[in-house]
Amino acid sequence: MTEFDFINNLKLKYDLSFVGDDAAIIPKDETSDLLITSDMLVEAVDFHLDWTTPEVLGHKALAVSLSDIAAMGGTPKWALCSIGVSENIWESDVLERFYAGWQQLASRTGVTLIGGDISRMQNGFAIDSTVIGEVASGRSLRRGGARPGDAIFVSGYLGGAAAGLKLLQSGLRFDDGFPPPVKHLLYRQLQPLPQVTTGILLQTRGLASAAIDISDGLSSDLSHILEAGSVGARVFADQVPIDPAIAAVFPDHRDDLEMALHGGEDFELLITVRPENVSPVSELGFHQIGEITDQAGRLELIGPSGSGPLQPRGYRHF
Amino acid sequence: MTEFDFINNLKLKYDLSFVGDDAAIIPKDETSDLLITSDMLVEAVDFHLDWTTPEVLGHKALAVSLSDIAAMGGTPKWALCSIGVSENIWESDVLERFYAGWQQLASRTGVTLIGGDISRMQNGFAIDSTVIGEVASGRSLRRGGARPGDAIFVSGYLGGAAAGLKLLQSGLRFDDGFPPPVKHLLYRQLQPLPQVTTGILLQTRGLASAAIDISDGLSSDLSHILEAGSVGARVFADQVPIDPAIAAVFPDHRDDLEMALHGGEDFELLITVRPENVSPVSELGFHQIGEITDQAGRLELIGPSGSGPLQPRGYRHF
Repeated sequence: MTEFDFINNLKLKYDLSFVGDDAAIIPKDETSDLLITSDMLVEAVDFHLDWTTPEVLGHKALAVSLSDIAAMGGTPKWALCSIGVSENIWESDVLERFYAGWQQLASRTGVTLIGGDISRMQNGFAIDSTVIGEVASGRSLRRGGARPGDAIFVSGYLGGAAAGLKLLQSGLRFDDGFPPPVKHLLYRQLQPLPQVTTGILLQTRGLASAAIDISDGLSSDLSHILEAGSVGARVFADQVPIDPAIAAVFPDHRDDLEMALHGGEDFELLITVRPENVSPVSELGFHQIGEITDQAGRLELIGPSGSGPLQPRGYRHF
Repeated sequence: MTEFDFINNLKLKYDLSFVGDDAAIIPKDETSDLLITSDMLVEAVDFHLDWTTPEVLGHKALAVSLSDIAAMGGTPKWALCSIGVSENIWESDVLERFYAGWQQLASRTGVTLIGGDISRMQNGFAIDSTVIGEVASGRSLRRGGARPGDAIFVSGYLGGAAAGLKLLQSGLRFDDGFPPPVKHLLYRQLQPLPQVTTGILLQTRGLASAAIDISDGLSSDLSHILEAGSVGARVFADQVPIDPAIAAVFPDHRDDLEMALHGGEDFELLITVRPENVSPVSELGFHQIGEITDQAGRLELIGPSGSGPLQPRGYRHF
């Protein structure tokens, strides 16, 4: 059972109608809703302290939750950060530097730290990041609004974070002297930039019929949109915007399409767009990668040498 | 450095004016505020799977955050639950049973699960529980309102949770056949009951000038009230309501006052009360244990054989 199955079972068993989008929506007042999301990051699974710096980790811990608020078109406002840390880490300067990096991104995105908790762990480091945002009442971007005939767009290049992960897994560690494409790929993995202003723009201009952030990987995240909207999709392989730094760093870049399709953590936005909005969304710099079909649940990849099913193979914890 | 020092440093450094009470207060609409709190529970530090059942642990994970909302006089409404679990635990029925226990307390207290996250951990189990409540605008109970001359009250018997912990640490495991006082002490530790309705009653009737929940221990939690209000306090040893089950279970109960003063996790409410409200608060079944003085930061214990400083010796993670 994957974590998605487990959560779906909980939703059914306990009738949890608020669960199932990038963030939960709760009514605030006559004109606005609140959005709230939590993300757990665990050392040795979701991050490695020797691959990053505490400041960069602090940035990422906040960024992953900001990305969920962005996918709902919300303006982030408040955050809570709970951590469990070993005595070792507690006695170092890691936490002070972690909060410095966290706070830097918070200032840039208008977020105020309002709470959290600190607990001791026997080993390691775990972070739970909660962000609360605001959005016009009933107007948040949802996963479930795609209709047959909608175009599918992504907000930027894909695969860079997966390529950065591959470099880190091969033993490479960040160094200021690296050539720009290597640094770029490492930054894509270690210090992602949530698409907060883009999400707000899509929401206020009403340009997206459905939206999600690419955290697990395009194939998995698109399949969530298909499931939520009871629709299908066709993705054109040659239209998927593969991060050009991948070719610059990996001379033999045979798996760059795989990275773009299934590698997670690019934290770009994946949206569907009604035909009349294709032109304004293209003008925002989004890349059109496919179209929504009426074949519920069917996700197809159209390649140069024919087409076939595109399996959701993005990141799963279980 | 304790976690309290660390958080105080963060508050000063980043000017975090929302941090420092049991829950953060954010404005909701013309008539109400939202309260939000997070608590991290870590296996082998905050709980032991072989001391409890998954259902009872699920109850406690929610209860600790409900208690913070209760201490602010709020009505709990929504919750998020993030967990990190090992593959071992994932493959067992622990999580399903954990959520069953969580959900049972949620239903009883009117709380809806709206989000959270699931991550893999290499070892163990960590839970971050977030609860959001609602309270009349500007009317939440705060830590900082105590004034010299206020009486100090607690909502119930103290020390039971610490005595239960002592039994568990000595190797005792829950058994339905145990005599009632033993079961009572184990329940106090494993399945605390947050004082949600009592908190709402205090808030709506305006009876408390300051409030906090007893999570770390009376001495530590009272010292937070003193710090927040720049006041001192005198606690009368013979008025501290020691859980009577302690004497029933431990024939040699010489440290029962210690347990009541410093043992955490009773999750009773600790409040201060203006002279005119002493009588209605007594009628609610609260126990008067002392009085607020004008000697800022000075916490004294008045015992049968004289008086002396009462050091905050409640639970600390670091």
